[in-house]
Amino acid sequence: MEKATHSEAPLYLKVAEIIEDQIRAGVLRVGDRIPSIRSLSRQQKVSVSTTLQAYFLLENRGYVEARNKSGYYVRVPVTELAPEPMFQNSEPAPAEVGVGDILTKFMRAVGDRGKVPLGAACPSPVLLPYHKLNRITRAIVQKDPLHSSYYQFPPGSELLRRQIARRSLDFGCRFSAPDILVTSGAMEALNLCLRAVAKPGDIVAIESPTYFGVLLAIESLGMRALEVPTHPRTGMNLDALERSVKKHRIKTCIVMANCHNPLGYILSDERKKALVDLLAKHQVPLIEDDIYGDLTFDLQRPKVAKAFDRTGMVLLCSSFSKVLAPGFRVGWVEAGRFRDEVERLKFFTTIATPSLPQLVVANFLESGGYDRYLRRLRLAFSEQVQAMSQAIAKYFPSGTRLTRPAGGYLLWVELPKAVNTLKLFRQALAENITILPGRIFSTSGHFQSHIRISCGYPWSDDIDRALLTLGKLCEKLAR
Amino acid sequence: MEKATHSEAPLYLKVAEIIEDQIRAGVLRVGDRIPSIRSLSRQQKVSVSTTLQAYFLLENRGYVEARNKSGYYVRVPVTELAPEPMFQNSEPAPAEVGVGDILTKFMRAVGDRGKVPLGAACPSPVLLPYHKLNRITRAIVQKDPLHSSYYQFPPGSELLRRQIARRSLDFGCRFSAPDILVTSGAMEALNLCLRAVAKPGDIVAIESPTYFGVLLAIESLGMRALEVPTHPRTGMNLDALERSVKKHRIKTCIVMANCHNPLGYILSDERKKALVDLLAKHQVPLIEDDIYGDLTFDLQRPKVAKAFDRTGMVLLCSSFSKVLAPGFRVGWVEAGRFRDEVERLKFFTTIATPSLPQLVVANFLESGGYDRYLRRLRLAFSEQVQAMSQAIAKYFPSGTRLTRPAGGYLLWVELPKAVNTLKLFRQALAENITILPGRIFSTSGHFQSHIRISCGYPWSDDIDRALLTLGKLCEKLAR
Repeated sequence: MEKATHSEAPLYLKVAEIIEDQIRAGVLRVGDRIPSIRSLSRQQKVSVSTTLQAYFLLENRGYVEARNKSGYYVRVPVTELAPEPMFQNSEPAPAEVGVGDILTKFMRAVGDRGKVPLGAACPSPVLLPYHKLNRITRAIVQKDPLHSSYYQFPPGSELLRRQIARRSLDFGCRFSAPDILVTSGAMEALNLCLRAVAKPGDIVAIESPTYFGVLLAIESLGMRALEVPTHPRTGMNLDALERSVKKHRIKTCIVMANCHNPLGYILSDERKKALVDLLAKHQVPLIEDDIYGDLTFDLQRPKVAKAFDRTGMVLLCSSFSKVLAPGFRVGWVEAGRFRDEVERLKFFTTIATPSLPQLVVANFLESGGYDRYLRRLRLAFSEQVQAMSQAIAKYFPSGTRLTRPAGGYLLWVELPKAVNTLKLFRQALAENITILPGRIFSTSGHFQSHIRISCGYPWSDDIDRALLTLGKLCEKLAR
Repeated sequence: MEKATHSEAPLYLKVAEIIEDQIRAGVLRVGDRIPSIRSLSRQQKVSVSTTLQAYFLLENRGYVEARNKSGYYVRVPVTELAPEPMFQNSEPAPAEVGVGDILTKFMRAVGDRGKVPLGAACPSPVLLPYHKLNRITRAIVQKDPLHSSYYQFPPGSELLRRQIARRSLDFGCRFSAPDILVTSGAMEALNLCLRAVAKPGDIVAIESPTYFGVLLAIESLGMRALEVPTHPRTGMNLDALERSVKKHRIKTCIVMANCHNPLGYILSDERKKALVDLLAKHQVPLIEDDIYGDLTFDLQRPKVAKAFDRTGMVLLCSSFSKVLAPGFRVGWVEAGRFRDEVERLKFFTTIATPSLPQLVVANFLESGGYDRYLRRLRLAFSEQVQAMSQAIAKYFPSGTRLTRPAGGYLLWVELPKAVNTLKLFRQALAENITILPGRIFSTSGHFQSHIRISCGYPWSDDIDRALLTLGKLCEKLAR
């Protein structure tokens, strides 16, 4: 896992690394109990809470697991998993997208609740705070009975925008409420930003692989995509990006710097800054999608690339769909110097965002407890990612490669070259299992033998069986 | 008011016309009591309920008013109002739109609840069934606590689509649930339809004047508008439309056949059929916006143009924003042969529509009482339109002209040529009154001395004073 390279690493990080080193060196082996919190605190001369933080981090990173109050134990180490996917460098060139057709065929199957849900990037409802959201909904209906009777014209609910502005300190920004525009999910935000900075026919630089929604937006707006080679840990190759910017008339660049979909990496602050500076130098607006940013497995919420924006050229999009309520469709955008144009487009496209979901999210954030909730959610996703990684390592054919997500709940799996994952997708569907084939994450025909697996649901026998089945299907296709 | 020209006019229409004729002939004068329901029934040999329908119609049309159980009395007749706006015929040519800039400046003012609301086409909350909607919201939160935890992927809630399909019989269609796609309001539907049938640079035929949202959508999608001369009672000039279709490569045509915004007319079935046939002959898809269709002042819900579609070339858009809940943003589209493309675009643009508002509307429709509610709502709007029409006739300078809406709650006012209504808009705003200037309803610079007045709010002293003030401002600007 890529480590955050803070200039002053927090104390808990150093403590965690001591244990990590011992595990890697074989001093501590699978099943061993690691030192108690109290004894390690004494030994390292740090507070109990620092040690506790270090152990949380080790747990999030999959090195140790807590057992019923008897302490922390070393678990199957990450190094025994399948290796990480390969990084393929190639010179980027603009292309028509053309994945929409494939994807629409898949969407209905992926949305079907009867299937084992390894396809769509949806969190399991059991992890979401719907009870509290419903309580808040009832309270609003009581307190503000006219909520449905007015248009909530752009920029959207003042209360919600204030809450988002307040939280922006956590990811390195200092937004104020008027900077923020509420949208119908991050997907609308992304579309509006694209339309604000580029026109049909224009070239958009993207990661490879990238979230298929980015490709669909580019395709449906008649723009062209230029895929920049993207490393599974360090993201977009900045040299390749700069060469492309110089060679092609690139109008904008879309990235996910935190908990990348599908690769799972979090860019270091240095890389975020380098990316922002590079694009600013060439006057290219950067559209940043941060919907998974709150789901880091680290203890510290990572900064957004926007935090390094000095010129208003970064448009930051996010939403509450991955952490609170997919069905609410509440997203937002801070569009820097393109704010007014994005607001105009929002009005021209959907007039307004529904009032009630905005008010519910605002009240949820205002009521406190969001950070505590997020900690539980992150740990759950981290555990699910680890459990599924291990099952894939066990069941899938040799030659399989696997990402090490730094957050979120998505795994990117590289299968042996012979495996056609479009075929795998169809065969899996016949077994009532949904996955997403790598093909839809690229315009270039890359990733024909990759799949994305969502770990949004708690580990279960159904999921275990589904992964076993997938492994067998892969085995056959690999022959 | 244009009469529906059904081949077999219902009996109540004939009865209503008898009374209308007597009023126009001066046999019955302002303040006279018209015959009692029972005596007219006997006299005309029709049932009491037919006579009652006739009287409702006369009331909706503004000829009579009911007084506290003492019967129906003749009120200020429509003929004493200012004359109707002029129809200007001119040869249409495609144009860039360019009204977005004007409009965004206006939008914030128009959305401000502190102003006298004659601008935005919003119904007054007191007319809306928000109590019942809130009751349903509470019930859903109880019964389906997971509503927010899932994406409601396109085409949207099955329950809602079934209800819309059921109601489609009322407007002459026989939709089934799979035909319908739920959207974030009619504005999203309109945008998706435009994108499904035309590309940037393409020409779209529109009414003149037309709803400014249509212009904004066309502008923001980089398309061009061709304004077809539009008569304030009979709609688009079909000869001009046909000449334009032959001369220019028109990719689609957008109309509002029922309760037109801003002109208020309802096209006869014959004209609807002629329009649909004309466009089908030339293979031009027709996008129909029917959001005011339920708000006819007639007793019979008018058919949509879509009802005459034999080739799947009509895309019908609507929403519940004007009749139930502006803040819900629940719209829908039946896109004929373009269904799949519109669904793809919906997914690419906003992924899904929020679940809860869809479920609330579906349950509202399912619970019954929608027609009874609509009857009350129509009567209220009809009364508001009449009261405001009379005040305008009284307060505005001579030379003012005024539409006779057949439904909805919008008035289109033609002021003396000298009145610049952009100036009037600004002066009115300084007096805390919002109106919309005619300029934003056209790309062609027409309608510089027109305004649109919304009659969405019940008559009040504030509105009376506001219209008096507007009249004085017009008087000054007319000099």
